[in-house]
Amino acid sequence: MEDVEESVLEARLGLSWVREPGSKALYTLVQQMGPVDAWRSLTTDRAMGNLRQAAASRLRGRDPARIVAELRRAAHRLGVTIVVPESPQWPSGLDDLAAISVDGIEPIERDTFPPHALWLRGPLPLEVTGRSIAIVGSRASTDYGEHVASELAYRLARGGWTVVSGGAYGIDAAAHRGAISAGGNTIATLASGVDHPYPTGNSHMFDEIAEAGLLISEWPPGSAPHRVRFLIRNRVIAALTRGTVMVEASARSGARQTLRRARQLGRVAMAVPGPVTSMMSIGSHEELRREGDERVRLVASADHVLEEVGAIGDGLTAVPQGPVRPFDLLSTLEKQIIDATPHGSGATAEQIAANVGLPVTYVLATLPSLEMRGHVKRGQDGAYRLALKT
Amino acid sequence: MEDVEESVLEARLGLSWVREPGSKALYTLVQQMGPVDAWRSLTTDRAMGNLRQAAASRLRGRDPARIVAELRRAAHRLGVTIVVPESPQWPSGLDDLAAISVDGIEPIERDTFPPHALWLRGPLPLEVTGRSIAIVGSRASTDYGEHVASELAYRLARGGWTVVSGGAYGIDAAAHRGAISAGGNTIATLASGVDHPYPTGNSHMFDEIAEAGLLISEWPPGSAPHRVRFLIRNRVIAALTRGTVMVEASARSGARQTLRRARQLGRVAMAVPGPVTSMMSIGSHEELRREGDERVRLVASADHVLEEVGAIGDGLTAVPQGPVRPFDLLSTLEKQIIDATPHGSGATAEQIAANVGLPVTYVLATLPSLEMRGHVKRGQDGAYRLALKT
Repeated sequence: MEDVEESVLEARLGLSWVREPGSKALYTLVQQMGPVDAWRSLTTDRAMGNLRQAAASRLRGRDPARIVAELRRAAHRLGVTIVVPESPQWPSGLDDLAAISVDGIEPIERDTFPPHALWLRGPLPLEVTGRSIAIVGSRASTDYGEHVASELAYRLARGGWTVVSGGAYGIDAAAHRGAISAGGNTIATLASGVDHPYPTGNSHMFDEIAEAGLLISEWPPGSAPHRVRFLIRNRVIAALTRGTVMVEASARSGARQTLRRARQLGRVAMAVPGPVTSMMSIGSHEELRREGDERVRLVASADHVLEEVGAIGDGLTAVPQGPVRPFDLLSTLEKQIIDATPHGSGATAEQIAANVGLPVTYVLATLPSLEMRGHVKRGQDGAYRLALKT
Repeated sequence: MEDVEESVLEARLGLSWVREPGSKALYTLVQQMGPVDAWRSLTTDRAMGNLRQAAASRLRGRDPARIVAELRRAAHRLGVTIVVPESPQWPSGLDDLAAISVDGIEPIERDTFPPHALWLRGPLPLEVTGRSIAIVGSRASTDYGEHVASELAYRLARGGWTVVSGGAYGIDAAAHRGAISAGGNTIATLASGVDHPYPTGNSHMFDEIAEAGLLISEWPPGSAPHRVRFLIRNRVIAALTRGTVMVEASARSGARQTLRRARQLGRVAMAVPGPVTSMMSIGSHEELRREGDERVRLVASADHVLEEVGAIGDGLTAVPQGPVRPFDLLSTLEKQIIDATPHGSGATAEQIAANVGLPVTYVLATLPSLEMRGHVKRGQDGAYRLALKT
C-alpha cells in the first residue's frame, strides 16, 4: 500500500467503489485520463455522461474524499491489505482481462475488465499466484467430485502450487481443504467482502485460509455476496491463475463460466471427466467435447494438470527434475511445525502451536499429513516427536 | 459365393488359409498377379522366395486343391457363408486396410492388410456394416462400463445401427447384449472359427447372434483363438464400421489397438470417460488426451456417437428428422414377433416362436423390450397379446 502514491491509491479505491467491477467504460476512462483525473472527473462534473450520472447516484451527494477515507480506515481496522494496479505486487495476469473482447448484451458478459483494487486478508503474498491453479466446480457436488478435487489440490499444493478457488460449498471447499491438508497454499477469491466470507457454513475453513492463505475480494469490507457478483468474480479466478480445472459441473453450472474466461484469457482450460451416468459430470463432458480454439483439456490427475500448464507456460518446470529431498516438498508452515517439534520428550499439538505462534487448529490440521509422510511420529502418550529422517 | 468365379473363390480360400491374415507380402503378390495366379505360384514353385517357403511349410506336401475342397465342404456342412474381395457383398471398407502404412518391427504392427476371405454364420446381410458402430473395451470391466456399453448399444441398435464387437467377456458382451435386447443387429467378429466362438462362457449369446445377427471370422471353421489372432482381428472390427467407441480400457488394454486402427483408417475414434479413480478408465482417459490428428472424441451418449459419425460420414442422417412412428423404430425381428402375436386370445412365447419360426430363446429375449415399449401386453395368464397402439 505504501508503495503507491496516496492520490493514486485513493483514486483507485474510489473507482473500485463507485461502480461494480469489470466496467469497460470506466476502464477506458482510466486508460485515457489516468486514475487520479478519472476519479476527479467522475466526482466533480456531475451531470455529463452515463458514467458520471451513475457515479452521482452512488455518491448521493456525499463527499467522495470521505468515502475513500472510510474505506481506508475499514481496511486498517480489519488488517486488510489493499492492492491496486500501480502496486508492485499487482498480478499482471489481471491486466489480461482488458484484452478479452466479448460482445455481449448482458453487462456480465460485456464487463470483463480488470479490477481497480483487490482487498486481501491473510499472510500469503500475492506473488504466489504466479504459480497457481484454479480448481472450480459445482456446489452440489458428489462424493466422487469432492474426493477428486481434494486429491488434486493436495497434490498440486504438495508440488508447490497455490490452489485458487471461490470458497463455495462442494468442489471449491474440497479444493481449499485439500491444499490446507497438504500444508500448502490456498486462496479463496470471494464475491463478498473479505471480512464476511460467504457462505458462513465454511467459516471455519475461511478462518484457516485467513491465517495461512489468502482471502481476496474486489469488493470492500462489508459488501454482500450479491448473486451477480459470483459471475463477475469468476473472471478474477481465471485471470489470477495459470489454468483452471473444472471438477464437476452440471449442464448449467456457473463453473463453466470460469472455464470460459480461462479460455478467453489464453489460460489452460481443463476438466476432469466422471461417470457419464452422473448429472454432475454432464457440464464437464460437454466442455470436453469442444473443438479447436475452444478445446478443453481432459485431466485425470495432478500430473496431467502440471503437464498441461507446463506445455504452454513460461518454461517453468512444474515437476521437479532433480532428485527431490523430502524437506524441499514442505510448505513454510510445515517446516515451521517441524522446527517446533522436539526429538526426545515430544510435544502436544498445543505446545507446538505455542512454539510456532500459530492457532492450534491449524497445527492439528497439518500434523497428520506430516506424520503420514514420516516427518513426525505420534507416541502412545499422544505427544509428537521428530522422526529421524527429517 | 455363387457370384464369384470358382477359380477365384478357391484361390482366395487358399490364400486365406496359407498364411495368417494381414500379410503385406501376400497382399502385394495378389495385387501384382491376381488371386488365381498368386495362389498357383505359391503352390507350384516351391523353392523360391520367403512367401513360397512359408506356403510349402504350411502345405507339408499335401495337395492344395484338396485342402481348398475340404474348406468348402466344411463351410457347406456348417451352413457357413464365404465372402471374398470379389464378392458383391464384400465390404469395401476392408480394402481401406491396404492404405494403412505402419512401420513396425512386429508382424502384428506391420501386417495390417485386408483379409482374403471372411467366414460368416448368421442371417444378417454383411451390407448392414455400412451403418455400423464398433463398441469395444476391457474384458475385466466394471458394472459401470457394462452398463454404459449395454445402454449405448441398445440405443444405437434402436436407431437402426448395427453394433459390432469382438464377443469377449466384459464390454464386448455387454454391447452385444444391449443390441440384442433392443431387438437390433449385432455382429461378433471373432479370432477363432465361427463354429467355435470364443469364449465358451458366452456360447448362449453366440447362439443368439448366430440366429439373428452375424458371426464373422477371417479364420476357417475349426481354427483356435490364438492369442495373437485377437490383435490381428481388431483391424477388421475397426475397418468394418463407421467408428469405434471404446468404453473401458485399462492402461494396457487390447481395445486401445482397435481404437488406434480406427484412427489409422480415418474412422471416427471415440471413447467414453469414467471416474478418474477407476483403473478401468485409465486407458480411456489417456486416449482422450491425444492431440491433433490422433484426437479421440469424447462421447457420453448414443446421441454423441451419432453426432460424431454423422459429422464426418457420408451425409446419412443417423437421427430421424421427421416425426418417428413407433413401428419405424422396430427391427425386422421385432416386427415379425409383433405380427405373430394375436390380439384377443393371446399366445405364449413358445407359440409366437412357432408362428415366426424362430427359437423360443430369441423371442423370450425380445418380448420384454416390446412390452416395455407398449407394443405387446403380458396377461395374468402369462400369455402375450398385441397392444392397441401398434
